[in-house]
Amino acid sequence: MKLNIAVLPGDGIGSEVTSQAVKVLKAIASEFNHNFKFTNADVGAIAIDKYNNPLPEKTLDLCRSTDAILFGAIGHPKYDNDPSAKVRPEQGLLRLRKELGLFANIRPVQAYEALLDKSPLKKHIIKGTDISIYRELTGGIYFGEKQLSKDGNVASDLCEYSRKEIERIAHLAFKAAQMRKHKVTLIDKANVLETSRLWRKVVAEIAEDYKDVILDFLFVDNAAMQMILNPKQFDVILTENMFGDIISDEASVIGGSIGLLASASIGEKYAMFEPIHGSFPQATGKGIANPVASILSAAMLLEHFGLFSEAELIRLGVDKSLKLNISTPDINTKYDNVTTGKVGEFIEDFI
Amino acid sequence: MKLNIAVLPGDGIGSEVTSQAVKVLKAIASEFNHNFKFTNADVGAIAIDKYNNPLPEKTLDLCRSTDAILFGAIGHPKYDNDPSAKVRPEQGLLRLRKELGLFANIRPVQAYEALLDKSPLKKHIIKGTDISIYRELTGGIYFGEKQLSKDGNVASDLCEYSRKEIERIAHLAFKAAQMRKHKVTLIDKANVLETSRLWRKVVAEIAEDYKDVILDFLFVDNAAMQMILNPKQFDVILTENMFGDIISDEASVIGGSIGLLASASIGEKYAMFEPIHGSFPQATGKGIANPVASILSAAMLLEHFGLFSEAELIRLGVDKSLKLNISTPDINTKYDNVTTGKVGEFIEDFI
Ligand SMILES: CC(C)[C@H](C(=O)O)[C@@H](O)C(=O)O
Ligand SMILES: CC(C)[C@H](C(=O)O)[C@@H](O)C(=O)O
Repeated sequence: MKLNIAVLPGDGIGSEVTSQAVKVLKAIASEFNHNFKFTNADVGAIAIDKYNNPLPEKTLDLCRSTDAILFGAIGHPKYDNDPSAKVRPEQGLLRLRKELGLFANIRPVQAYEALLDKSPLKKHIIKGTDISIYRELTGGIYFGEKQLSKDGNVASDLCEYSRKEIERIAHLAFKAAQMRKHKVTLIDKANVLETSRLWRKVVAEIAEDYKDVILDFLFVDNAAMQMILNPKQFDVILTENMFGDIISDEASVIGGSIGLLASASIGEKYAMFEPIHGSFPQATGKGIANPVASILSAAMLLEHFGLFSEAELIRLGVDKSLKLNISTPDINTKYDNVTTGKVGEFIEDFI
Repeated sequence: MKLNIAVLPGDGIGSEVTSQAVKVLKAIASEFNHNFKFTNADVGAIAIDKYNNPLPEKTLDLCRSTDAILFGAIGHPKYDNDPSAKVRPEQGLLRLRKELGLFANIRPVQAYEALLDKSPLKKHIIKGTDISIYRELTGGIYFGEKQLSKDGNVASDLCEYSRKEIERIAHLAFKAAQMRKHKVTLIDKANVLETSRLWRKVVAEIAEDYKDVILDFLFVDNAAMQMILNPKQFDVILTENMFGDIISDEASVIGGSIGLLASASIGEKYAMFEPIHGSFPQATGKGIANPVASILSAAMLLEHFGLFSEAELIRLGVDKSLKLNISTPDINTKYDNVTTGKVGEFIEDFI
């Protein structure tokens, strides 16, 4: 297969981890006789520095003309504590999601056998956990109108959802559940929010088309608790943008490190694959960033194009690296000094 | 001291737990020669059933004429799954908070020595945790304009904050930190939300007045993770309404049961004390509801009026009940059959 892949390393540890994912994809290409072409482009703080624009048109054009996007990370502390900054790195990522219509962010969460002891949670709580989170990604309070009064004393953000936005991701979630454990849990705050009540209504209607799937509802505050008390109760989680952001980061503690969690952002025309971790500025350039999330994002990319054996081989390589403790410090059980590059090389060689 | 206390049991297990708290307060009154007068009133689903109004004027008038309010719980499943219900129990609680100006919800979270093994989190993670959460309670997306389009296909909720709303609770949080470990962590999503950027700006300004307190910022997604990875890093948490709802329910896993968490809702004129758990419909009438959260809410009530020795005595009673395993099934380590009433009686006798 021929695939053009845009690589957007972004900020912080982004370039270190995506370069390992590219390495692994190249190994797959040569092993399976595929033709993968990689083209890099800037996004985020680094693009602000160069072009004063977190998402240069050139980058967007590239994304539109490729088959898939491999994304690194975004964010820089110099913007985080400057509430008055007009241009911010995150706008690049948010605009990219919106422009490409990447409405469904899919985040698999599972407990790795080799890492059960690494989690802050007790082993019997997490063992066997296997969740797929479907987070709506182009709507809600992220994209609603933002206002700041002239005198700077009143701010607002509008959370808005339409039936159509809810329907399209709900169908994906139910379809996923049909191939899994036949359960969808909708997380919302329907006892307070009008948008949540619309979610509950629309999702309940759609559930009628999927009689073999059980639909369950949880208020987000309770869900944040249940995720820790008994994560095994979940199969597919369906939720809106902001709740999905919070709940999926929280769920990362199950895997033992946020450095393991991959995600796919899917739209009607485009698809982007990115770790759920951030730019981790403190780790930049130190060779300690965990490349597994980015490498597993590459595996999700392959699956997206039907290359299941290829993806499986990557997963086997990751599993083996975890078992043999070829892991960066965040999850290394013997505190060996294994670098980002070493993990990538190991998986490359395995392939 | 003479205190008029309004008791609003509300729905579900509300009346079972508040009646234990009243029992304990009566014991305190007789032991310390205080004069506490209790008056009951309806709120929530039960008030809808009786008056078709989740917050009858009679109840509101009573609250306005008493010194403090002891609140039970609110919510009923028949409204949760009916997105089109016009009147809902939660409106009673939300209106009560708003009408009485209860802008600061204070939720202490701590790991009880006797219950360290009950948490899904590993002992070394939670041991020594002592957090005080300051959640803004009368603003944000809870109270912003809600809209549903005529055709029912588009819904919206407005999240709005003013400088003044942020300032008043921020001052309380910093003052609390001065009496504790001198650290405030602001939880927000300033990389996305305009309201969060206002929070960050205003809170940073106020921090200037409290030079002995360290101010830290965390994005809410990261905070949801940090709460589980390393809860001991927190002292005072300051946050807006919705994030506070989620983060504090999540934090309840540290204590071993949400049935232990008390809260105080404070305004300029009024004060209300309530467990953070909900109405727990499945447990209603079974005598299995944990009354400790309600009893500790009563202790917070006493502290609010400067009755520190009285509150301390209640806390000692609770500690002892936990140590002796005089506890409801949620935390009972030997699976003994101790009822809600038995726990209340034990603490009453202790006093
Ligand atoms: C960087 C930030 C804007 C982003 C988000 O909140 O969506 C990130 O946290 C994520 O989850 O991908
Ligand atoms: C019942 C509900 C409206 C309420 C809230 O969300 O504030 C509850 O969850 C709480 O935290 O007190």
